[in-house]
Amino acid sequence: MAHVSAGVEYALHCLLFLVDAQELGQPASARDLAELQKVPAEFVAKLFTKLQKAGVVVAREGIGGGFALARPATDITVLDVVEAVDGRKALFECKEIRAQCALFGDRTPGWAVDGVCSIHAVMIEAEKRTRDVLAAHTLASIAGRAAMTAPRDHADGVREWLTARTPRRHRRAQTSQ
Amino acid sequence: MAHVSAGVEYALHCLLFLVDAQELGQPASARDLAELQKVPAEFVAKLFTKLQKAGVVVAREGIGGGFALARPATDITVLDVVEAVDGRKALFECKEIRAQCALFGDRTPGWAVDGVCSIHAVMIEAEKRTRDVLAAHTLASIAGRAAMTAPRDHADGVREWLTARTPRRHRRAQTSQ
Repeated sequence: MAHVSAGVEYALHCLLFLVDAQELGQPASARDLAELQKVPAEFVAKLFTKLQKAGVVVAREGIGGGFALARPATDITVLDVVEAVDGRKALFECKEIRAQCALFGDRTPGWAVDGVCSIHAVMIEAEKRTRDVLAAHTLASIAGRAAMTAPRDHADGVREWLTARTPRRHRRAQTSQ
Repeated sequence: MAHVSAGVEYALHCLLFLVDAQELGQPASARDLAELQKVPAEFVAKLFTKLQKAGVVVAREGIGGGFALARPATDITVLDVVEAVDGRKALFECKEIRAQCALFGDRTPGWAVDGVCSIHAVMIEAEKRTRDVLAAHTLASIAGRAAMTAPRDHADGVREWLTARTPRRHRRAQTSQ
């Protein structure tokens, strides 16, 4: 199983659209972001609950409301999103096997469990490097790179698509009244 | 779930005992290594099948046989063991969500999937850093650090314990004949 979940992938893709939406001061609903990317709407809604709880996004109330980034895209790292969605998963869970040597009998000597296990130390170092990379990239830096490959009119098209959904949401709300 | 499995942890602990056993030219059985550490023998046996298949250990046949490192401990990295046991697990599995934008209709334009997705690129970088750390540590370097904390007589005790198992294995084999 991959360590970084599909939820993180969906969340990051949605948040990249919010980077652009933020410039327009226009929030987007989880449902619209899901439909824009043809991904399951219920799953995306759950991701936004997590992102909101972690302070990555804020919900704007009302018919024309939706989610917006809680702070500038330059201040939201990939690590923030990974932890918001997946929690803080350890790369490795040390079981302190070094304490179980048959020679110790029923009593593990202090030196055997002193400090971090040498194997665990390697995994901690590896995990730290991973986290450093994830913390070095922000939504802004990724959005910037993604924008370099897309034609200008695509971003305009996405903006129009999302904006066009707002009256539709308004109509849906009226119909259900 | 942790990305590096408990199997890797057990395997590394077993292999560290083999580093020492190698100096004596004395192989150890998977069963003895499991009992030495009070871990499930069947699970350890399966790990050694994987380690042998990956060329990390070799099996020495015969009553006094067992497993030995296939090459010097300075040439077996933590990454070798992780890949032998867990296979080459990706940190992240890109689903190419960028190709699914509703604006594309049924036809994804080439630019949308050109090169690596910007999100995937971050994960590839993170994974590379993890692998670099795992490849930088060897069984020899870990054994060296572990030996610094253990009293000298402990290593002697382990050697004696493992050596004492060989005639016992011999007896078991005779009994079952």
